[in-house]
Amino acid sequence: MAIASQDYEVHALTIDYGSKHSRELESASKLAEHFKAASHRTIKIDLGIIGGSSLTDEKIILDTGKKLEEIGKEIPSSYVPARNMTFLSLAMGLVEVVGAEKIFIGANAVDYSGYPDCRPEFFEAFQKTAELGTKAGVEGKPVIIESPLLRLTKAQIISKGMELKVPYELTWTCYSGGDKACGKCEACLLRLEGFREVGINDPIRYKD
Amino acid sequence: MAIASQDYEVHALTIDYGSKHSRELESASKLAEHFKAASHRTIKIDLGIIGGSSLTDEKIILDTGKKLEEIGKEIPSSYVPARNMTFLSLAMGLVEVVGAEKIFIGANAVDYSGYPDCRPEFFEAFQKTAELGTKAGVEGKPVIIESPLLRLTKAQIISKGMELKVPYELTWTCYSGGDKACGKCEACLLRLEGFREVGINDPIRYKD
Repeated sequence: MAIASQDYEVHALTIDYGSKHSRELESASKLAEHFKAASHRTIKIDLGIIGGSSLTDEKIILDTGKKLEEIGKEIPSSYVPARNMTFLSLAMGLVEVVGAEKIFIGANAVDYSGYPDCRPEFFEAFQKTAELGTKAGVEGKPVIIESPLLRLTKAQIISKGMELKVPYELTWTCYSGGDKACGKCEACLLRLEGFREVGINDPIRYKD
Repeated sequence: MAIASQDYEVHALTIDYGSKHSRELESASKLAEHFKAASHRTIKIDLGIIGGSSLTDEKIILDTGKKLEEIGKEIPSSYVPARNMTFLSLAMGLVEVVGAEKIFIGANAVDYSGYPDCRPEFFEAFQKTAELGTKAGVEGKPVIIESPLLRLTKAQIISKGMELKVPYELTWTCYSGGDKACGKCEACLLRLEGFREVGINDPIRYKD
């Protein structure tokens, strides 16, 4: 979104990591099409083989009973071990092949500080690692990792998206899986709170 | 190998990344069994979707015409963009789930300096990133990345393996694919040179 607004040629990368909410893959495709991405690749990787998260492991129940104010106090069961590190590594590979200058990732640290791999210091360290471990870095063309949503509140993200004409009806946030959003998981609670604060209706459908 | 010799409980992780030399997967299973790994997982991930390497991209020809002394002068076509970063990220996820203390990776920087992600400074930076981006790191139990072969020559690696009773007949190095090793790719040249220097015969079969 921010990317398309900055006149970059966008190469979209989706990771199908075996999450329960695979409905987001459909949204990713629609958004890549909407924003006229120069390319869109989906890499399949079954993180369920590693497990350890309520998003990928059938045996771990997703928490849908939290109150908004409880979110972010501790690392939640939906934390997928080393997920953003894996995603960024794959993106770094793509960057080298298409010759991109930047990686944009939509991580957010403010509302949701429970995930260690959504913190600014993690992204800074990753960028340093990538400079040392990639051909581009060695050749003096290090890639910049941009996380434009990192320090925004959920309400600020919604506002920014409205300004940039994001088709929110094509987006997906819910962790529970299914055709309609559950409205109860941590991801839904934060999304709904963002829309509520801005005072507009969320256009996606929720279960009754 | 070194791991089993140090009395660790070993959780083996193989990444089936869509390389042409998938024969190595069979070797990985046999070695995990031989060394009585506590578990052995194989994660499939098609890096061919990203491409950019003669190991994963059908359109890029593997170089089998190099002389031994030419190896390591530049980043070879067999460099898989951001591969070790991706592998280590996946291993880091597994570490968090099984509660491991260390990751062992068989990268080697001395004979083969062409790969940026086989350099000591890359592994150091990655470890720092992992400390910041994982639950284990945040909880003060950072994982140590060990690369015991990093500074050994290929001959020293072969010698060390002999000492540790590595069943070399179960190992695989060739990049070309097929049932017998080609003896011509960079990986074969370096392996054969290691055996030659130590003065023992390589027990695997090579094409005539």
